Amino acid sequence: MPTTKLSGPLLIVNPKAYLQSADTLRLAQITNGLAKKFGITTLFTAQHVDLRLIADETSHLTVTAQHMDPITPGRGMGHILPENLADAGVQAVVLNHAEHPLDLAVLDATLERAREVGLATIVCADSDAQCRAVAHLGPDAMICEPTSAIGTGAMDASDYIERTTAIVKDVDPTILVIQAAGVSSGEDVARVMAQGADGSGGTSGIIRHPSWEQILTEMYQAIVDSRHV
Amino acid sequence: MPTTKLSGPLLIVNPKAYLQSADTLRLAQITNGLAKKFGITTLFTAQHVDLRLIADETSHLTVTAQHMDPITPGRGMGHILPENLADAGVQAVVLNHAEHPLDLAVLDATLERAREVGLATIVCADSDAQCRAVAHLGPDAMICEPTSAIGTGAMDASDYIERTTAIVKDVDPTILVIQAAGVSSGEDVARVMAQGADGSGGTSGIIRHPSWEQILTEMYQAIVDSRHV
Amino acid sequence: MPTTKLSGPLLIVNPKAYLQSADTLRLAQITNGLAKKFGITTLFTAQHVDLRLIADETSHLTVTAQHMDPITPGRGMGHILPENLADAGVQAVVLNHAEHPLDLAVLDATLERAREVGLATIVCADSDAQCRAVAHLGPDAMICEPTSAIGTGAMDASDYIERTTAIVKDVDPTILVIQAAGVSSGEDVARVMAQGADGSGGTSGIIRHPSWEQILTEMYQAIVDSRHV
Amino acid sequence: MPTTKLSGPLLIVNPKAYLQSADTLRLAQITNGLAKKFGITTLFTAQHVDLRLIADETSHLTVTAQHMDPITPGRGMGHILPENLADAGVQAVVLNHAEHPLDLAVLDATLERAREVGLATIVCADSDAQCRAVAHLGPDAMICEPTSAIGTGAMDASDYIERTTAIVKDVDPTILVIQAAGVSSGEDVARVMAQGADGSGGTSGIIRHPSWEQILTEMYQAIVDSRHV
Repeated sequence: MPTTKLSGPLLIVNPKAYLQSADTLRLAQITNGLAKKFGITTLFTAQHVDLRLIADETSHLTVTAQHMDPITPGRGMGHILPENLADAGVQAVVLNHAEHPLDLAVLDATLERAREVGLATIVCADSDAQCRAVAHLGPDAMICEPTSAIGTGAMDASDYIERTTAIVKDVDPTILVIQAAGVSSGEDVARVMAQGADGSGGTSGIIRHPSWEQILTEMYQAIVDSRHV
Repeated sequence: MPTTKLSGPLLIVNPKAYLQSADTLRLAQITNGLAKKFGITTLFTAQHVDLRLIADETSHLTVTAQHMDPITPGRGMGHILPENLADAGVQAVVLNHAEHPLDLAVLDATLERAREVGLATIVCADSDAQCRAVAHLGPDAMICEPTSAIGTGAMDASDYIERTTAIVKDVDPTILVIQAAGVSSGEDVARVMAQGADGSGGTSGIIRHPSWEQILTEMYQAIVDSRHV
Repeated sequence: MPTTKLSGPLLIVNPKAYLQSADTLRLAQITNGLAKKFGITTLFTAQHVDLRLIADETSHLTVTAQHMDPITPGRGMGHILPENLADAGVQAVVLNHAEHPLDLAVLDATLERAREVGLATIVCADSDAQCRAVAHLGPDAMICEPTSAIGTGAMDASDYIERTTAIVKDVDPTILVIQAAGVSSGEDVARVMAQGADGSGGTSGIIRHPSWEQILTEMYQAIVDSRHV
Repeated sequence: MPTTKLSGPLLIVNPKAYLQSADTLRLAQITNGLAKKFGITTLFTAQHVDLRLIADETSHLTVTAQHMDPITPGRGMGHILPENLADAGVQAVVLNHAEHPLDLAVLDATLERAREVGLATIVCADSDAQCRAVAHLGPDAMICEPTSAIGTGAMDASDYIERTTAIVKDVDPTILVIQAAGVSSGEDVARVMAQGADGSGGTSGIIRHPSWEQILTEMYQAIVDSRHV
């Protein structure tokens, strides 16, 4: 299978388990149109059961699984087999999110499986030490996120963004760093891009906005503008 | 959403994580043809990412998830939201398989969620005590399976089948009991049906057979014949 | 090893992880004196590392582990071996607490191990369905506890206590039912005993009281008084 | 609390869950005598319920827990509170063993707790990538161990030992590297020390030996001899 390569800057639209299939598809289609218009790499995650639908109905999204397991074809009742994600058009996978933490050995094995089937990997990390350790596992991208800020709509007031971005880049400057905790506006996106991130995005900041078209347009514009600073 | 009601006798075709998407679809289509021909309720499980495809491409299968989580719409990155399974045409879910065991409280909560979204429930149990306890949680069907026999191709030599079937029926005679451990032929299916089970089926006994059409025909025929004994 | 048999009424003093070793020992000694004075069966739990100390320094407590694993002698790095609890003078074990939930199969296997080494078993359950299922696994005692009430200091306002006690007794009247959620006074203990429970007790309701002697005396007195109603 | 500092070379005697309390104490006393005689830092692990006993009855062992949880005083029924380990005389803790793997975030938080209560930390890792990632979390010592070799009595035939030792030392030369997989003789210990390890030891290679005194003497002698090479 061909390997997906991510290039920044990028936006992640991550509806988690907020939306049923029809709304997920509607959000994907809006995002797809804007991804095409702005020409920005866009990670779009969805429930596993909706991933093939999103892949079939869009053309400019990097369709992304929210988790997968390190199993190989065989047993593994109820676990997510990497090969079938690739079969369905999935191109990337998020691992080790605070809502789905992984044993270090499992994370390592799952990254290996992702490479085998050609999926790009985005790994989440919280503390400085976790960011550094994960960077050494060789993911394609990372989401640095202080667990305490998830879903709050409030951004970290300290130097978390600059500090963790620098930690990852110091280990390997080719790892794309996404900073998205508490991001809910174009201004927020502009701020994290100015602080060195390769990408941003969000969940509740997008889902709860009265106009998905408007909030996404703001975020894409902020990313485009950040390139010309 | 409409609630799925299961009626016996039934066959379960459970490829677990053995097959990639194309082969899963091919197995589903063969099974669909035979389910139609024999008129037997058929549970067909698949990887989450393949479930919608199977539901779209078949008409006589009870499309069945291999697991889901008790989450409600909202957070839950990487977890399986029941609503979207139903959206995709899934009608049933297997829970607490030995390869994906659940906390008792999680199992209880997930059964509740399945009822809310209209999915039929098939819960696995091993020992006599577990079979009795699970029966009291009120699933629609159960798979009684001694963990030590899974994937061996060898059936339990003791009275496990009769004993656990009787335990479940004693709690609630409307719970459909599936006995499938080590089943790999029409004769095996005939034996468990004669011992009181409402259904049978399998994983490796089907997947590894050189002709899926042949082994499934044997199994369906054995179920049909068991009705006339 | 001799098997521990519990007889009601009983009090459980469950400091969880609130107290360091010296305070745990002090609480154990106060409880021991009152257990002797009132002649009431008393389950006293402690951190695993403190259990032998408590067993050595007291005489009238049923020293109780807060968890153990279903392992047998051999591998199992970092897991709790039942035999060594018994070696240390432990006589009972709490399993499946909401803060340490167990897979159904693990719970079943651990109950079996407890019987093998002679430990009395106290299993926690939340919903009606869970209470009924656990009762069928044959524990010696149960703690029925709505998860949402743990640590709140507020008792359930509905008929939870009477209802779940009746559910358990209906399955097996010899199972001792402990109702302790939100209990923080002698009056609370009196209330649950009047509602049919075989025992009560608590964690924060005892630990946070300015006088452990006073609150425990109140609770013991309420249990003694409940026998004469 | 005073912080335990480990200095190499060292031996780890890790009976896991193989021994009941009396045998654990006997093994500890034999080890204690030899640790004193040879003057080698010795990590001795035991079941949590036996740790205080071992600490009380020995004088030359670094008494080591096989696991602990990142909880702080408060809730945490059934979990291992770090403070009480320190209270009992425990000086070190092994984390992330293949038989008790930890989420990366939990491992990070538990290392932080260990530093707070003064325990030395020994963290297990398997693959090259895991060894590198763990080294960046800043443990005092590491056990590099290919999971497939645990309990086999056979040592890795490739360059695993030299390679992973070098990976860790390259990150931080002060981290003590223990290589013990498959080690069951003084010769095995001599080999890993010659390959750059700071320590060795084992479980089944010691426990199953007909004379604990003899096998331990061999191992200590090999470590002493390795200093003069």
